[in-house]
Amino acid sequence: MSAFSRFTPLVSVLPSTVPFVGPEAIERQRGLKVEARIGANENGFGPAPSVLAAMREQAGDIWKYNDPENFDLREALAAHLGVTAANIAIGGGIDELLGQIVRMVIEPKMPVVTSLGGYPTFNFHVAGFGGRLVTVPYVNDREDLSGLLDAVKRESAPLVYFANPDNPMGSWWDADRIVAFARALPETCLLVLDEAYSETGPAGSLPPIEALIGLPNVVRTRTFSKAYGLAGARVGYAISTPGTALAFDKIRNHFGMNRLATAAALAALKDQAYLAEVVGNIHAARERIASIARANQLSPLPSATNFVAIDAGRDGTHARSIVDGLMQHGVFIRMPGVAPLNRCVRVSVGPERDMARFEEALPEVLRLLD
Amino acid sequence: MSAFSRFTPLVSVLPSTVPFVGPEAIERQRGLKVEARIGANENGFGPAPSVLAAMREQAGDIWKYNDPENFDLREALAAHLGVTAANIAIGGGIDELLGQIVRMVIEPKMPVVTSLGGYPTFNFHVAGFGGRLVTVPYVNDREDLSGLLDAVKRESAPLVYFANPDNPMGSWWDADRIVAFARALPETCLLVLDEAYSETGPAGSLPPIEALIGLPNVVRTRTFSKAYGLAGARVGYAISTPGTALAFDKIRNHFGMNRLATAAALAALKDQAYLAEVVGNIHAARERIASIARANQLSPLPSATNFVAIDAGRDGTHARSIVDGLMQHGVFIRMPGVAPLNRCVRVSVGPERDMARFEEALPEVLRLLD
Repeated sequence: MSAFSRFTPLVSVLPSTVPFVGPEAIERQRGLKVEARIGANENGFGPAPSVLAAMREQAGDIWKYNDPENFDLREALAAHLGVTAANIAIGGGIDELLGQIVRMVIEPKMPVVTSLGGYPTFNFHVAGFGGRLVTVPYVNDREDLSGLLDAVKRESAPLVYFANPDNPMGSWWDADRIVAFARALPETCLLVLDEAYSETGPAGSLPPIEALIGLPNVVRTRTFSKAYGLAGARVGYAISTPGTALAFDKIRNHFGMNRLATAAALAALKDQAYLAEVVGNIHAARERIASIARANQLSPLPSATNFVAIDAGRDGTHARSIVDGLMQHGVFIRMPGVAPLNRCVRVSVGPERDMARFEEALPEVLRLLD
Repeated sequence: MSAFSRFTPLVSVLPSTVPFVGPEAIERQRGLKVEARIGANENGFGPAPSVLAAMREQAGDIWKYNDPENFDLREALAAHLGVTAANIAIGGGIDELLGQIVRMVIEPKMPVVTSLGGYPTFNFHVAGFGGRLVTVPYVNDREDLSGLLDAVKRESAPLVYFANPDNPMGSWWDADRIVAFARALPETCLLVLDEAYSETGPAGSLPPIEALIGLPNVVRTRTFSKAYGLAGARVGYAISTPGTALAFDKIRNHFGMNRLATAAALAALKDQAYLAEVVGNIHAARERIASIARANQLSPLPSATNFVAIDAGRDGTHARSIVDGLMQHGVFIRMPGVAPLNRCVRVSVGPERDMARFEEALPEVLRLLD
């Protein structure tokens, strides 16, 4: 297939890959229809009615570019978090922010530390800028804080990724352990503390903003995709020192934000009553998923996120059979990518109709596998 | 201000700049309100009612990530253009695609050819990847095709940018001249043929798809931001050989598209009757702007776009005074950034209420400047 002959050496050798196969692609490839979409850690409870109303009301403004400074959203987030707007950078979801962070720090062959089986999109960006991944295994299904610190020091790595609560396992660390980890890092190593699931964790698992806001080498990333139910809108934000936040302005696509998405995020932030209601629904759905797992002699892991990792008791092949089998019933779920995490399947929360479908399909799938 | 200490050498020296100051920032900085938003080459006629209806109907799906393969939109565009989906790459507006293209081709210090005064966002991306801009002056307010070709050969440049129709001057070349230019380029030079204004040019100004689709070193970029009235949605696309298109998949943010924006683009593409109506409105508004200019003894340039460059007859300082003076009347316009183009001001089309406000304000502004 004829392609341009002078791409950079790095781009020339990269694969044309996608970090995750989307449910739509599975439908097309397998000729199946997704009836319960509980695989991508989306939030099937959806955004607040007030958010949908804001989007519908402001749809007519879509002919205008969004404010490139994201002024209103940064101000609103700053007020919400108790920081200043200068501490906030806005991006098209955490995924885009991760790409920008990697670009800001990594040159070809530089080491980047993450957990073995951690977020594939981060790894995709590291590969995309030529970085060398140094991975640290999970311990007891949690990211290994001391192992990550050791790897950073051993490699003199300029960048480390850590998610709390964690994806794909749903596990977490207490705030004080995370703060200690961040403070123990060399100043020359940037910590990406991915807090995509910050709204759904237990009390004490989220470091207070003030505990880390003074550290120039810490960037906390959060999103409207999970608890706020706006995955399709693509709005994420980074919290850091003003000096570090300013670096995003050097390279980001200033006119890249969708205007309605920004309006949706603003409306979502205002409706904290709905957020509290949804977080309650998420907690209940986690329990529901765990109870379905137990009823089928599988072991749900404790979760601080909007999904539950379920230990299926055998290996990755077995877990893959469950994922594929459920899809035959129209139930879309996913699973971790590497051993030993891939003994698990990962089921995202959703409304009761999705939970019921999962409950119905799982024993049928397992029966065929025995 | 304390920032992380180990950004790449390139990022460390980049300025925290924005290619354009948004109208919202001008409102905040100057305490003025934009009453006529005709400066950012948006389309004040807005998208089709059918597009707004599609967005409102599908708003409730915003909790789902968009299909990372953009399958439906690529299929629809392929059918519309008479190519295959493999010829199409989707991005968050042409701006994002330009950043990806620069990243795919440019390493630090490599020469990149463009016109002096051409699209600043392209230049922003070139700087962001450390490229060295080689600029060719406009000739008679048109990009200089032979000058660009000479510069590419002289510098052995791997990348050249050319917009047809042109921004900021509104000028254009006939299709056969552009095809000849593309074919004369060395195979080792990628041409970005930016066709953001492809829908509004005169007959004969747009090369047929089949004239360039076989060239691996040509990427044509188009958008839903201009004639389709969806600037705030951020949907653009690139047309190239399948081999070249595949390179986008190596580095793009696969889950980066807004789901409603994709739905809006699909609906917009279906409503070609509305597009024809809007293009008629754009032509009429261009005439209206030109006639207001002439009534004030200024010289409108011919335009193939959704804006008109108006020669104000003096230098950049004078043009700047007109831009600033109009803003005092709530009329937001822009102007080219460098001489001699900056003797002009640039007025985007809009509905009659905006044209009337411009017509009223312009003579008052000019009177104070004489």
